[in-house]
Amino acid sequence: MRRNSIRFLLGSVLVLACWSLALAAAPPRSAGPKSAELVQVGVIDALLAGGYDGSMSLGELRRQGDFGLGTFDALDGEMVVLDGVVYQVLSSGQVRKAPDNLTTPFAQVTRFAPDVSCPLTPGADLKAVEASLNTAVGDANCFAAVRLDAVFETLTARSVPRQSPPYRPLAEVAKEQAVFHFTSVRGTLVGLRGPAFVRGLGVPGWHWHFLTRDRLRGGHVLTFVLSSSGAGPVARLERLRRMELLLPERGLGGLDLGRDRAAELKAVESGK
Amino acid sequence: MRRNSIRFLLGSVLVLACWSLALAAAPPRSAGPKSAELVQVGVIDALLAGGYDGSMSLGELRRQGDFGLGTFDALDGEMVVLDGVVYQVLSSGQVRKAPDNLTTPFAQVTRFAPDVSCPLTPGADLKAVEASLNTAVGDANCFAAVRLDAVFETLTARSVPRQSPPYRPLAEVAKEQAVFHFTSVRGTLVGLRGPAFVRGLGVPGWHWHFLTRDRLRGGHVLTFVLSSSGAGPVARLERLRRMELLLPERGLGGLDLGRDRAAELKAVESGK
Repeated sequence: MRRNSIRFLLGSVLVLACWSLALAAAPPRSAGPKSAELVQVGVIDALLAGGYDGSMSLGELRRQGDFGLGTFDALDGEMVVLDGVVYQVLSSGQVRKAPDNLTTPFAQVTRFAPDVSCPLTPGADLKAVEASLNTAVGDANCFAAVRLDAVFETLTARSVPRQSPPYRPLAEVAKEQAVFHFTSVRGTLVGLRGPAFVRGLGVPGWHWHFLTRDRLRGGHVLTFVLSSSGAGPVARLERLRRMELLLPERGLGGLDLGRDRAAELKAVESGK
Repeated sequence: MRRNSIRFLLGSVLVLACWSLALAAAPPRSAGPKSAELVQVGVIDALLAGGYDGSMSLGELRRQGDFGLGTFDALDGEMVVLDGVVYQVLSSGQVRKAPDNLTTPFAQVTRFAPDVSCPLTPGADLKAVEASLNTAVGDANCFAAVRLDAVFETLTARSVPRQSPPYRPLAEVAKEQAVFHFTSVRGTLVGLRGPAFVRGLGVPGWHWHFLTRDRLRGGHVLTFVLSSSGAGPVARLERLRRMELLLPERGLGGLDLGRDRAAELKAVESGK
């Protein structure tokens, strides 16, 4: 009897434990499978307007995704999230692993699970690579994430210096960017693409951050040319058809986000 | 011994059941509390461009929220989601409960849990009510949901006729809207507000749909004046600082969403 009770008990525990795990793993709202998601902290127009106060810790950000881009509280450098590690490219050009208690005012991350491969042409430049990737993605009206491990004949990247309040608009601050020139460099590009309709909220088009293979240098990418020797590298990408926007609980500091900042964004992104 | 085993078994079952429920109720990514969320199906610029093919069933939509606005596959009327019921305001002006297997190309819903009350002035019109609500919301840069049960001295609402492919842009179709004039009508307004930076993706500013108290008439609200007799009604509202965007899995049909459709949206929303 005792043995039977114990067996029944153990059986019940197992059943319930499995049920618990199933519940915990289930998507929160629907019974169907969820598609890949981009999680965005903050709003690009707020960043352009000088909203540099961090609203989410990097510890929390890492729970939202393992791959992506962003910046840090007080605009202290360029963020690259790669393999679950948050790298901080300081304006000195040096890279450090950012501590979990640092915060971010703007970041975009995903749990990266690429399901499309895109072979690239040796010697291709940024524009040619983006064109190949657009063809591989197929749909212009979804988000996409791309990882490219490659050798670059040349690559220029930049970072921005830490700011102090009162914060100036990003277009002004970006003029003080530090630009880094790499030649024959091996490393990893982290790329995210937003559809045209995210203007105001996110970044339409491609947005690239770079880390050298030793993860000691990097930045926001301005230009590159792939190595022309050997076979071209293969980008791995994923379409994302869900986006979760997380606004700061305390608000965006009363910033006036009524006007169109598309031209400012373009200037800032291209480093001009 | 047997009694002890059973006690232990029952205790274990209870503990595990509670654990399961706790896991099921827990937010999917983080240990902290999640704030209120707007779930958006589709993109407003796609709707403006004539993307009227439904991408989510109403059954699935009702799992995303119990309160909100939208339209139906083939633009077949105005959607009002109230108390978990999806009402369809046909272009005849009649309202029916829409079946779960109908689909929607664009809808915005939330699990409505208002935590702010906003007393309104008797006789106030749409603009005055929106101004009062903006003050009550406080933050211009978040989403908000509002429910207002009230008597209206006058109210005009519209609906749109079901379309057949090839679909024309919404600004053209909206010219064929049916307009309904109500006087001394009691009913419920469902309102959602988007921040300025959702342009292209969502609806910046307020967006109102209406149902009469008997839920037999309604539509997309163009104008109203609150009853001037008695105490003013009290709107109940909630700030929403998370937005989940769900894009159709099969894409948005290759629509060109590159250009700014803000003026079209304004014309369509205001019924002009």
